[in-house]
Amino acid sequence: MPNIRLIVEYNGGAFHGWQWQPNLRTVQGELQRVLSVVLREEIAPVESSGRTDSGVHARRQTVSFRCEALPDLKALPYSVSSLLKGDLGVLEATEVAEDYHPRKAAHSKQYSYVILNRPAPPTFEWGRVLHLGGRLDREKMMYEAKTIVGFHDFTSFRSADCGAASPEREILESNVYVEGDHIVYQVVGKGFLKQMVRNIVGTIIEIGKGNTAYPSLLEILEQRDRSKAGPTAPAHGLFLDWVKEEL
Amino acid sequence: MPNIRLIVEYNGGAFHGWQWQPNLRTVQGELQRVLSVVLREEIAPVESSGRTDSGVHARRQTVSFRCEALPDLKALPYSVSSLLKGDLGVLEATEVAEDYHPRKAAHSKQYSYVILNRPAPPTFEWGRVLHLGGRLDREKMMYEAKTIVGFHDFTSFRSADCGAASPEREILESNVYVEGDHIVYQVVGKGFLKQMVRNIVGTIIEIGKGNTAYPSLLEILEQRDRSKAGPTAPAHGLFLDWVKEEL
Repeated sequence: MPNIRLIVEYNGGAFHGWQWQPNLRTVQGELQRVLSVVLREEIAPVESSGRTDSGVHARRQTVSFRCEALPDLKALPYSVSSLLKGDLGVLEATEVAEDYHPRKAAHSKQYSYVILNRPAPPTFEWGRVLHLGGRLDREKMMYEAKTIVGFHDFTSFRSADCGAASPEREILESNVYVEGDHIVYQVVGKGFLKQMVRNIVGTIIEIGKGNTAYPSLLEILEQRDRSKAGPTAPAHGLFLDWVKEEL
Repeated sequence: MPNIRLIVEYNGGAFHGWQWQPNLRTVQGELQRVLSVVLREEIAPVESSGRTDSGVHARRQTVSFRCEALPDLKALPYSVSSLLKGDLGVLEATEVAEDYHPRKAAHSKQYSYVILNRPAPPTFEWGRVLHLGGRLDREKMMYEAKTIVGFHDFTSFRSADCGAASPEREILESNVYVEGDHIVYQVVGKGFLKQMVRNIVGTIIEIGKGNTAYPSLLEILEQRDRSKAGPTAPAHGLFLDWVKEEL
C-alpha cells in the first residue's frame, strides 16, 4: 500500500484540536473525511508528527496516510484544499517509504508565539496573535528566553494532565525577537510536553510586565512545580512552524 | 481649533471604500461616528491623504480632523480602536499645525499588491491576497515591473471614470519581489490615477501567465488606450502601505 506524506497548514481556530473526536470538527477528522471523498476509499488513520492543542495553528505540519492506489500527487493539494477552503491547506504531497511515520521521523520542531504589543487590537491578524496593549520589557523578555536552552526537567511548565513519561526535554533554540509592534517567541526542540510552550510564553509575558512573582525562567525550572510558573498563554497566538525530519 | 493627525490601518473588506456615504459603512463615516462618540463632539470631516477604493486595505493611512478641545492623544488609539475592533485601528495620534491637510502633505505613497501563488488557497490570509494556483513567469513579472519607473501618460491604466485632470503620473519605484509562495508588486509614486495600481497588476499577471495579448507594459503605455491593458486585479490583494509627508 502506498504511504503518502502531506505538508499541511491549518487555522487552529477552526478546529477542536488535532485528534479525531465524534461529532467535533478536528484536523485529523476533517483530513480523513476529505481524503476519503477525494480518493474514493476509506482513509484512516491520518497520522501526524504530534497533536497540536485545540486552537493552535500549524504552518508546516507533517502528516501521512496509506491508500490502496497511488493518487495523483500533483492534483492532491488542489483537490483537498478546495474542499477545506480557508481552514486547512495541503502544501505538498509526496510518496514516502512504507515504514515512514511522521512522529518517528520528526527530529525537531519549531513553534512561534506571536504577541501584538500596541494600543490598537489587530486588524489583519485576528485570531492569530495575542494582543497586549500595555508596556512590556522587551529586553528582559529577550534575555530570559535564551536562558532555557539545553536539557531540563520541565515539570514547572507542563500541563497538570500531561501524560508524558518523562518531564525532561531538550531545547535547541529559544529566542524572543521584536519586529515593529510584534514580539515573537520562537523555540526549537526535539519534543515538547503538553502546553509547555504556552506555559513558557505565559511566564515570559509576566516577567515582561515586571510581575515580581516570577523571578526568572531558570529559578522556576529548578522548583519543579507548575504553580510557580505563569498562566498558560492563549492557544490562538501559537504556531507549529515546521517539523524537521531525519529520513 | 486643534488639528489632529491619525495614522490608521483598515481592512478594506469591512468597508464600502473610504468616502462617507449615507447608510453604507465607509472608513470616513466610521471614523467620524466613533471619534464623535469618544470626543463627545461632532467630528467632521475626517480628511485623508486620498481615497482608497472599496475593498482596498491600508496599513498606514494618514487622516486628520479638527476638534474643539485637545483630546488625550495617548488614550485615543485605545478608545477609537476598541470601538472599531478588528476592522480599523488607530496606530498613532499627534497634534499638527493648523494648516495641515493629509492630502497636501502627502509627498509620495507606497502600495503593495499581494499574490499567493500555490495550489492551496490561503489559510491565514483570506481576503488579503489574490490566490492564483497556476504557473506564473516570476522572472518576467520582475522584469516588466521595473520598466515603468519614471514619468508617463497612464491613460492605458486608468479607470474609465477616473476624474483626474491629467493622465500623467510619476512612478518612483516599481518592483515585483518573490517571498516563498508570495509574489508582491510594490509601487511608490507621487500620486496615482483611479484603479491605476490594480490595472498595472492585472496586466503584469497576464504577462506572467504568458498571455501574448499583452506584449509589455511600455508598449501598452504608449498606446494610451485602456482596452490594451489587462483586467483590473481584485481590490482585496491591494494595500496602501504608507504615505510619506513633506512637512
